[in-house]
Amino acid sequence: MIYPKIPLAQTVVQLFKAKNIKHVIISPGSRNAPLTIGFSNDVFFKCYSIVDERCAAFFALGIAQQLKEPVAVICTSGSALLNYYPAVAEAFYSNIPLVVLSADRPKHLIGVGDGQTINQKNVFANHILYEANLKLDIKDENNIPVDEELPILKNLEDKLERFLGLQKGIQVYNEGEINSAVNHAIIKKGPVHINVPFDEPLYEVVETPCVSPKVEEVQFKSKTIDAYELQECLEYWNAASKKMILVGVNYPDEIEQKWLDELAEDDSVMVFTETTSNIQHDNFFPSIDQIIAPLSPDKQKQLQPDVLLTFGGLIVSKKIKALLRKYQPKQHWHVDEKSANDTFFCLNKHIKTSPNQFFESFFEKQTHYVKSTYKDIWLAVKEYRIEKHKAYLKEVPFCDLKVFDVVLRNIPDNSVLHVSNSSAIRYMQLFNCNKTVQVFCNRGTSGIDGSTATAIGGSVVSERRTTFITGDLSFFYDSNALWNNYTQKDFRIVVINNQGGGIFRILPGHKNTANFETYFETRHDLTAEHLCKMHGYKYTMASTEMGLKKVLKEFYEDGERPKLLEVFTPRELNDELLLQYFDYLK
Amino acid sequence: MIYPKIPLAQTVVQLFKAKNIKHVIISPGSRNAPLTIGFSNDVFFKCYSIVDERCAAFFALGIAQQLKEPVAVICTSGSALLNYYPAVAEAFYSNIPLVVLSADRPKHLIGVGDGQTINQKNVFANHILYEANLKLDIKDENNIPVDEELPILKNLEDKLERFLGLQKGIQVYNEGEINSAVNHAIIKKGPVHINVPFDEPLYEVVETPCVSPKVEEVQFKSKTIDAYELQECLEYWNAASKKMILVGVNYPDEIEQKWLDELAEDDSVMVFTETTSNIQHDNFFPSIDQIIAPLSPDKQKQLQPDVLLTFGGLIVSKKIKALLRKYQPKQHWHVDEKSANDTFFCLNKHIKTSPNQFFESFFEKQTHYVKSTYKDIWLAVKEYRIEKHKAYLKEVPFCDLKVFDVVLRNIPDNSVLHVSNSSAIRYMQLFNCNKTVQVFCNRGTSGIDGSTATAIGGSVVSERRTTFITGDLSFFYDSNALWNNYTQKDFRIVVINNQGGGIFRILPGHKNTANFETYFETRHDLTAEHLCKMHGYKYTMASTEMGLKKVLKEFYEDGERPKLLEVFTPRELNDELLLQYFDYLK
Repeated sequence: MIYPKIPLAQTVVQLFKAKNIKHVIISPGSRNAPLTIGFSNDVFFKCYSIVDERCAAFFALGIAQQLKEPVAVICTSGSALLNYYPAVAEAFYSNIPLVVLSADRPKHLIGVGDGQTINQKNVFANHILYEANLKLDIKDENNIPVDEELPILKNLEDKLERFLGLQKGIQVYNEGEINSAVNHAIIKKGPVHINVPFDEPLYEVVETPCVSPKVEEVQFKSKTIDAYELQECLEYWNAASKKMILVGVNYPDEIEQKWLDELAEDDSVMVFTETTSNIQHDNFFPSIDQIIAPLSPDKQKQLQPDVLLTFGGLIVSKKIKALLRKYQPKQHWHVDEKSANDTFFCLNKHIKTSPNQFFESFFEKQTHYVKSTYKDIWLAVKEYRIEKHKAYLKEVPFCDLKVFDVVLRNIPDNSVLHVSNSSAIRYMQLFNCNKTVQVFCNRGTSGIDGSTATAIGGSVVSERRTTFITGDLSFFYDSNALWNNYTQKDFRIVVINNQGGGIFRILPGHKNTANFETYFETRHDLTAEHLCKMHGYKYTMASTEMGLKKVLKEFYEDGERPKLLEVFTPRELNDELLLQYFDYLK
Repeated sequence: MIYPKIPLAQTVVQLFKAKNIKHVIISPGSRNAPLTIGFSNDVFFKCYSIVDERCAAFFALGIAQQLKEPVAVICTSGSALLNYYPAVAEAFYSNIPLVVLSADRPKHLIGVGDGQTINQKNVFANHILYEANLKLDIKDENNIPVDEELPILKNLEDKLERFLGLQKGIQVYNEGEINSAVNHAIIKKGPVHINVPFDEPLYEVVETPCVSPKVEEVQFKSKTIDAYELQECLEYWNAASKKMILVGVNYPDEIEQKWLDELAEDDSVMVFTETTSNIQHDNFFPSIDQIIAPLSPDKQKQLQPDVLLTFGGLIVSKKIKALLRKYQPKQHWHVDEKSANDTFFCLNKHIKTSPNQFFESFFEKQTHYVKSTYKDIWLAVKEYRIEKHKAYLKEVPFCDLKVFDVVLRNIPDNSVLHVSNSSAIRYMQLFNCNKTVQVFCNRGTSGIDGSTATAIGGSVVSERRTTFITGDLSFFYDSNALWNNYTQKDFRIVVINNQGGGIFRILPGHKNTANFETYFETRHDLTAEHLCKMHGYKYTMASTEMGLKKVLKEFYEDGERPKLLEVFTPRELNDELLLQYFDYLK
């Protein structure tokens, strides 16, 4: 086996191995050669090579999201690193452990006009859990590590004496920083950045490593809920006849079903979920907008809860946000180990524990069901809306809404569904998705920028087959995501192509002007067909309901290549038919 | 004419107009609607719509580079902004005035879990000249602007009194910040970021603007050279028999020819240029590596100058950097109004003026020619090398080197040539490019990430026709650059496709292992053909010298669409033939 000769590179690789970081996405470069050599020559690691760093980082994010474990991305010095930023921000807001390893020039070669050199230190400051700025391994003539602050190329002799007091074990300093960074990613679940300076020669290898860094174990502190706080909650809970639970982005199988069943039994509790909540119960309310959109303001007020309990990440529905900001609950509690957003400007408690732990403590404490008509009234509304929904979809001509209806019926059981942002994830919320399907969407920043790469990354490590549903702009935005050698042949993409940003037709503003089409809708005539040819996807298309149903039959059959289905919908009809839908639901 | 209703949006648009920012690249979004409405409805502005913000920013950079005037890029809130970062860093190191305008949510909606919301404030801190964080226009009931710090949604009444002291003219504050940001971009030549919060409603328009912001004029301070410093320079100059001038990235027509002629006459002066220096003289040395690469270390020492005068941006040649770091000049002066890199660790003077001003002051001061053999010895070497170069290129089989030879002979007179980073720009330096051709390359960060979009942006505003020469990885990396409606039909791309990162074969390290091919060379079988079909380029290809010469005849003929020529070269031969070339030159 071979190792990079540079001790710092050996240290990084050994510590990552000790911390069980298995998946490593490498973008090509020279400055990062010591890391590339180290990781790619150790069979412990599953390495992936992806050129476009923007895609590489989202691909890594997809793996980390799927496995719930830290994944490393490695790039060379310079602007390469900056291309990671969209995925770093997504990881930050979605609590995904992404470990960024950037190679850098040594300090004395930064800011002197060398190529591929920027100011990498703390470059993600706004959206990172930890930034470890490592130092070069430099030894003096007695083999003692010296501080890089020494201007080593000039007047070394003169200044050695002055800096003698600063001598310290760089290796040890770096070890500590690497340990801390990775431990932060694991404990706090989010992105960290380790910047690693290397001096030339970069490509030398040795057969025996010369370092054995100390591994600092991850210390998990289990958080218990304050007894007083819990008692207070209990009193509110048992007294309230209108309790709402609203679940944001939540990993599949995260919440024990018994707690959900418990909640579903209580007539005073309405549980609002989204497809990204990944929890199911017949008594829950999975299509929030279907309930709210047709309501008059007066009727909306009837939904106002006394107690609002939230958990999970970001909420898709703008309508529930607007409603709860207007009709605020008396109590809003958010349950999350890490942080709590004051989404409705009335947060009373951030209960710092996991939802499971909270429910356990809570239900153990003699909560009781409260007699109430709160849920039943709205269950009746829900039933009514579902019937209207079905009736509308029977009648409606071919459009985005219809496509979701047809496609979602065909998603295989027990599979994974990734959805891109903007209208795709919003349409999704109007349907009762197959209950065995796990749904993912990058809601942290809700960007249209890296959903394809995230889906592909996720699919690579998932034992379930993966479908990715995306709008056209989001798909073309991330077209380079298709450029990799790791896409599974059972991976499927559905592009709903309405020739532009269909969401802008739904938003307010003037339509059907050249200005609107150019700068808002950004109308185009692109198709995914050429990209499929380029990257080895089997391409099929549909532009009618019959056509769509026909191609869907074959779409999920096994094949030798991943498949992409492009569905063309009538650009100028989609928004009208969606607005009519909400009218019809009334 | 219509205007956005929000006064802050009107203010931005009016100030940009007053500052003569004509070109505005807009990416679609809702939060930025007030700006999009403002800019796109005023015919003063030439607006462009580009979806992928990474490409949009490089496209803008290309325009700003070409016109030497500030160009604006506008995006919505969230991760959109982060996709600008690679171009922002390039602008920072290449001194290109890029004005980033990001829409943002108002402060009270940040960090509460709303979609497309990140921490945009100072997000480019490491690589920006100025960050203006504007504030929301909020008026109280008396129409007095109040500070956004007021938690306006909650308890407004309670807290108004407490904050009364903070009331100030937000409009005026914002005016000042916008003025300062744009003036910084103009005076200091580089990127600035203006973050603009908008609250809903975003799409409302009015027929008469309600603001008339104060324009703060740009104050240029002309920098004169210190007389004492100049005198000191003069003494060194007139005493030195070995003077080297090394020119980095430099705009075409930037330096007056009379100064170049003056320098070219002096036998004690060697002027080293690169294709990106955009200056020409028969007595200059345009192929630095051709001179240095074949030299033994002893011979290299003979090049060591007494005085080294540098101007322009970053240097491509690693060999001259290594040589001058090893054989440092006694005096190194860098002439630049803004900054000076200590590239060779021996910078003595940063002369803060333009090269033209410096030369004017200098030559006026009775410099005299110094008798020396310095230049003549190396002119003879140059002649010899040129002959050897010609002989080698006659013999060499088809390879990257040969392709550059053939393609560069065909670049039309008086045209613009953009070159991508990595091997493409390095190969370029081995050829005497057509003297009437202007050469551009993103050497600020030397990234492979946005060269295509930069070239297309530049071509859109240039009166000269533009050719872009690129390697395959760089081309595929920026494939979304082709996605725009503005590419001129006389625009030409030459992709030199050696099926991976050919430069890694030239760098040290183990070749011809699966590991090397995957993680360093990143071998692929992609071609540009499908992207051409997708984006309406006429595609041609060549894989032999004869084929290449044949297609080049038609390549520059007029056509209805832009054209792309893909040249396939033998992946495993290119590096060997390049190394042999340097051997042969000896």
